[in-house]
Formats: sequence, C-alpha cells, structure tokens
Amino acid sequence: MSVRQDSNTARARGLTHADPKDVSLQDALTAVADPVRRAILRELAGVPDWTKTCGTFDLPVTKATRSHHFAVLRAAGLIEQRDAGPRRLNRLRRAEFDDAFPGLLELVLTSPADR
Amino acid sequence: MSVRQDSNTARARGLTHADPKDVSLQDALTAVADPVRRAILRELAGVPDWTKTCGTFDLPVTKATRSHHFAVLRAAGLIEQRDAGPRRLNRLRRAEFDDAFPGLLELVLTSPADR
Repeated sequence: MSVRQDSNTARARGLTHADPKDVSLQDALTAVADPVRRAILRELAGVPDWTKTCGTFDLPVTKATRSHHFAVLRAAGLIEQRDAGPRRLNRLRRAEFDDAFPGLLELVLTSPADR
Repeated sequence: MSVRQDSNTARARGLTHADPKDVSLQDALTAVADPVRRAILRELAGVPDWTKTCGTFDLPVTKATRSHHFAVLRAAGLIEQRDAGPRRLNRLRRAEFDDAFPGLLELVLTSPADR
C-alpha cells in the first residue's frame, strides 16, 4: 500500500497514513472487505471527529489484530489517527474518501445486507 | 455464500447462481476485491448480454482459476451464465446488482485508480 507519514505527532509515534487520492481501488476494496474493519468504520461514523480512542471500540479481536486493522484503514485513506498523550484518537476521512471512491463508504455504512 | 440453481440448462451442468438481493455485503465486496474478477466485469460491461463466451476473456490465469473466478462472480450475483451447446455465455447482472449494492459496480467499472 502507498503510505506516507503525516503530522509531527504521528511521525513521532511511527504512524503512517495515506491520502485517499493516492490509494488504489484494490487497497480501498480490500480495506472494506473485512467485517471487523467495517465495524470500526461504522462506530467512527457515529461519533464526532477526534473523540473516539482506539481502546473504546467493541471488537472481538486481540490488541495486535486490532492494531493491524487500524493500520490497514490508515493505509487505505479511511481513517486518520493522532496521539494525545496516552490516547490515540480517530477520525473517519469521510469526505476525502468519498471524493476518491464515490459511494463505497456510504455502502459500507448503510448496507442492510451486512450479515 | 448463498447460492441457488438457476434454469434448466444451468442445472444440467451444475451451475449455481445467487440473486444479488440474497448476497451479503461481505460476499459482494470479496467478489470485487480481486483484480482478475474486476477485469472480467469490465470486459463483460463492454459487450451485449449473452454474447461473450468464457474462453474469450483475456486473463493471465489457468483454466481452473478462471472457473473459480466465474463461480465467485455467479455466487455474488454479479454475472449469469448459461450454456449454448459447447459454449458458456455470460451476462453482467448490472441492474440487479446496482439495486442491491448501489454504486459498487459503477466504481469497479469506472475507477481510474485501479492500478
């Protein structure tokens, strides 16, 4: 995946991000083709930007797996993360991702067929 | 994947199909999150229904792998196949799939970021 480092805080902690416009369709589709990652996106869509910390997501996976999923979502341009002291805060990159992949995030957030 | 058999001809050859409205978001996303399957969908989008045979797709994979990809696309409600003598003909289920997963197929067929 094409990634770049973003912001001083993120660089300090080694977080890499990708801008949605630099993300391939393959990486965008792979990112959303996972039920845990879709659960993260839906939880983030329901709260204001930069209010939800990584530890507060209700996910049936280990901490290491959770970190992997967040990394995939950053690399796909779907979320942005920044550290505030000991907490890692999250933002859904809804508008930017919509510009790059129209309709895809909306489908993930609203599909009644996600079973 | 939820599949059902469809039409007398298809049943005779063991082809299973799924109606897009019975397909999960997971199966729909998994189906399009593969570059070979997206290539099949794009080729089909460029020709009239029931005019393209399986052997005429330009794909860098073995015959067995090709058959697997077609089966995944049938099970995701993306294509319909029927046999006409020795030839297997294809149809993109564009309208039905659009109804079930608005925008997804359009993204696959038009994205300039598919690299």
